[in-house]
Amino acid sequence: MVNGIDRPLDLLNSAKGKEILVQLKTGKQYVGTLLAFDIHVNVVLDNAKEVENGEQTTSYGLMFLRGDTIIFITPSAAKA
Amino acid sequence: MVNGIDRPLDLLNSAKGKEILVQLKTGKQYVGTLLAFDIHVNVVLDNAKEVENGEQTTSYGLMFLRGDTIIFITPSAAKA
Amino acid sequence: MVNGIDRPLDLLNSAKGKEILVQLKTGKQYVGTLLAFDIHVNVVLDNAKEVENGEQTTSYGLMFLRGDTIIFITPSAAKA
Amino acid sequence: MVNGIDRPLDLLNSAKGKEILVQLKTGKQYVGTLLAFDIHVNVVLDNAKEVENGEQTTSYGLMFLRGDTIIFITPSAAKA
Amino acid sequence: MVNGIDRPLDLLNSAKGKEILVQLKTGKQYVGTLLAFDIHVNVVLDNAKEVENGEQTTSYGLMFLRGDTIIFITPSAAKA
Amino acid sequence: MVNGIDRPLDLLNSAKGKEILVQLKTGKQYVGTLLAFDIHVNVVLDNAKEVENGEQTTSYGLMFLRGDTIIFITPSAAKA
Amino acid sequence: MVNGIDRPLDLLNSAKGKEILVQLKTGKQYVGTLLAFDIHVNVVLDNAKEVENGEQTTSYGLMFLRGDTIIFITPSAAKA
Repeated sequence: MVNGIDRPLDLLNSAKGKEILVQLKTGKQYVGTLLAFDIHVNVVLDNAKEVENGEQTTSYGLMFLRGDTIIFITPSAAKA
Repeated sequence: MVNGIDRPLDLLNSAKGKEILVQLKTGKQYVGTLLAFDIHVNVVLDNAKEVENGEQTTSYGLMFLRGDTIIFITPSAAKA
Repeated sequence: MVNGIDRPLDLLNSAKGKEILVQLKTGKQYVGTLLAFDIHVNVVLDNAKEVENGEQTTSYGLMFLRGDTIIFITPSAAKA
Repeated sequence: MVNGIDRPLDLLNSAKGKEILVQLKTGKQYVGTLLAFDIHVNVVLDNAKEVENGEQTTSYGLMFLRGDTIIFITPSAAKA
Repeated sequence: MVNGIDRPLDLLNSAKGKEILVQLKTGKQYVGTLLAFDIHVNVVLDNAKEVENGEQTTSYGLMFLRGDTIIFITPSAAKA
Repeated sequence: MVNGIDRPLDLLNSAKGKEILVQLKTGKQYVGTLLAFDIHVNVVLDNAKEVENGEQTTSYGLMFLRGDTIIFITPSAAKA
Repeated sequence: MVNGIDRPLDLLNSAKGKEILVQLKTGKQYVGTLLAFDIHVNVVLDNAKEVENGEQTTSYGLMFLRGDTIIFITPSAAKA
């Protein structure tokens, strides 16, 4: 599973086209399909949805998320 | 729908001349027509309106928004 | 009205010599005549006045405002 | 009065040797004679005094103020 | 034990493939196997788990953690 | 007294070897003999002492203070 | 004692291999043997211990501390 992850952004590259979970500093979480990212960790999600307490609350479609508000990104669904 | 979005700013480029929703770190939201943006994610909106709880509260006309206060930008109207 | 705004700072350039409203991260607003700005969005206002709840509270004359405290700048008067 | 202010720092240059008021993000204000500044808006005041509610509370003599704590600088005395 | 640690990132390099503990500014801790890092201290963990009060609360699998939210990283298990 | 202060850091240069007062963003103050500084306003104090309400509470000897936590530095003793 | 401290980082260089105290913006303190540092003031401690109210509460062994969370570093033991 860890093949090809030499630099942190390699993980984002391998997640392109797949669903990711983005945790923001504000405490909010967003899920969506990763379309694009850059070295500032700005990301574009498709089919973006806000998640609160594990529930999807708002749908946004395409979304540009500014990198400096992001704590972590995980391509895997959370398992408790 | 995702054609042509290789880098995050491509989404903003494709949204020029269209209405976008901008979420700020202060908790406030602004909607307006995207006229211009730069690599700092500074944006200029035309017909800018502040939104609180889904209601438009104040109209500003043209507005320069500084990129470092922005959390996300979405070209699509929110659907609950 | 949007002619000539290719980059965000074009809006500030077109507002030189006119009255603008500056919203700060502190929650305070300042109005004044825009004399100068730079790429950091530092601005100089003439006839600067602090505004609270739509009322002008303090007059300062010339004022240098540091760009990193600014949320938005609008050349248009607010209309409710 | 606005002659020679093409860039924001021109205002600080024209205020050298004169009394200025510096508003910090902490809410504190300092007045003093502007001796020097740089592009980071670091400033040196002579005869620096802390001001609270319009009253001068503490005198410091020479003071180096770091630019990133500054909200605004005004060369003019405040008039209510 | 300290052989080969001339620069701070040497510690992260020697911890590749091993379990590390990451303390965030938000107060949250994450443990996982360090796969990659860069000069911004962005890191990728495998088998990432959130830790609260010494208890593992949520599993995430692969995780990209943005460097600017990190306080410290330790390759050693905490001992009270 | 103001001779030789063309740039803000000139004040720190002229204060080398003398006692300075450093005000931090945390609200704490430190006094000590200025040994060294750099363009980030990182400073090294000798005989450093924490000051609270005008009272010296803790002595540290040599101390490296990171510039981005500093609000102001004054080479003069405070006079009420 | 001040010989050889021309620049702030000279103090950290002279403290290599010795015990230092690191004060973080979070209010926490860490002590340990300084193994490495860089120009961002990132540091690596060996035998790192968290200190609260002068009591050592948790031991971590090796620790990478990110520079932007650091307020001060002192190579000398605190004396009340």
